[in-house]
Amino acid sequence: MTVKSFELFFETTGRTDMIDVTDPVRDVLNQSGVIRGMAVVFVPGSTGAVTTIEYESGVLEDLARAIEALAPEGATYQHDRRWGDGNGYSHVRAALLKPSLSVPVIDGRLTLGTWQQIVLLDFDNRPRRRRVIVQIMGQEL
Amino acid sequence: MTVKSFELFFETTGRTDMIDVTDPVRDVLNQSGVIRGMAVVFVPGSTGAVTTIEYESGVLEDLARAIEALAPEGATYQHDRRWGDGNGYSHVRAALLKPSLSVPVIDGRLTLGTWQQIVLLDFDNRPRRRRVIVQIMGQEL
Amino acid sequence: MTVKSFELFFETTGRTDMIDVTDPVRDVLNQSGVIRGMAVVFVPGSTGAVTTIEYESGVLEDLARAIEALAPEGATYQHDRRWGDGNGYSHVRAALLKPSLSVPVIDGRLTLGTWQQIVLLDFDNRPRRRRVIVQIMGQEL
Repeated sequence: MTVKSFELFFETTGRTDMIDVTDPVRDVLNQSGVIRGMAVVFVPGSTGAVTTIEYESGVLEDLARAIEALAPEGATYQHDRRWGDGNGYSHVRAALLKPSLSVPVIDGRLTLGTWQQIVLLDFDNRPRRRRVIVQIMGQEL
Repeated sequence: MTVKSFELFFETTGRTDMIDVTDPVRDVLNQSGVIRGMAVVFVPGSTGAVTTIEYESGVLEDLARAIEALAPEGATYQHDRRWGDGNGYSHVRAALLKPSLSVPVIDGRLTLGTWQQIVLLDFDNRPRRRRVIVQIMGQEL
Repeated sequence: MTVKSFELFFETTGRTDMIDVTDPVRDVLNQSGVIRGMAVVFVPGSTGAVTTIEYESGVLEDLARAIEALAPEGATYQHDRRWGDGNGYSHVRAALLKPSLSVPVIDGRLTLGTWQQIVLLDFDNRPRRRRVIVQIMGQEL
């Protein structure tokens, strides 16, 4: 059994930017040598989240619209009143969607469906360089 | 330390079908021999999700209504315009609820509450045979 | 590799009480001796949840308002009609937010952002003594 830690970095536009991180996660899984176990994909910070989706532009738009309804950008936020960041909606969205995703690894592969990608959501109100942790635990070959 | 992988299959009706998968998960936990560790329940595919709930028909109805409000079946989805699947709402619901759940294992048991069951949510718009991965990692007896 | 299990207890007010549990989770991580691995924070029961947030009163209020919109306290719930608990909204909120959070551990530390705290959400409609499981798996020093 082993644990291997990886850091990935992504340049994001913010404002519910959705980035397909599946290939980079697969790359570090291959580097890890783990063939059976688990990969935890985690975004440090309180305005990002991780989930899975069929990564095609129609669904991305649909998801963005649903998230906009959950915490509308134009509403009034106490966070903004107190801190003036203007990203109160980003914090609420991130807390609802959560920063962590655990994916099983079997035969050296993520057990994703064929049309299921791992997606980093950046809810902040400005471009950022996002750090994503991929923690891989399990049995090596 | 060991990792054991299991596949479970469930026939679902789709349309926010909610299936109690606690007993099958407990069965494979018992088979695994793991007494302290973690069980990750994961549904491959981009129209399913996993969470916990008190599995009684009232709450199930209440949850279904809240999910319907998050991504109404009758709304217009870009996914449907482009792909004609008619299940744009299913994708949005699944991305919001997420496909993964991690449950600690102590003394060979899931640390669920008494009225807390693990539930597979199938948001697709048709019956499916759903595959669920249960990945169990930890110490054996 | 090891697995260490901890129980934490918190007195909550219910009604979407949000408690910062980061320090207690850090304390048990330090006790565990695990330097690389994963911490799973899990709340048994079907009216609680765990996520992360910048723990400041403005954001907490903003999140509470968004959650109120997801499952309004004043709406009619089938759970309440059948069981008379009056906490149907609590169950729906908990199922949507989910009871589990996995955080990577690197160099003996949780990989949280600087302004990112782990928060226990108690959605029940009364004060409770909440049990939280922290399961820590990984390599020891």
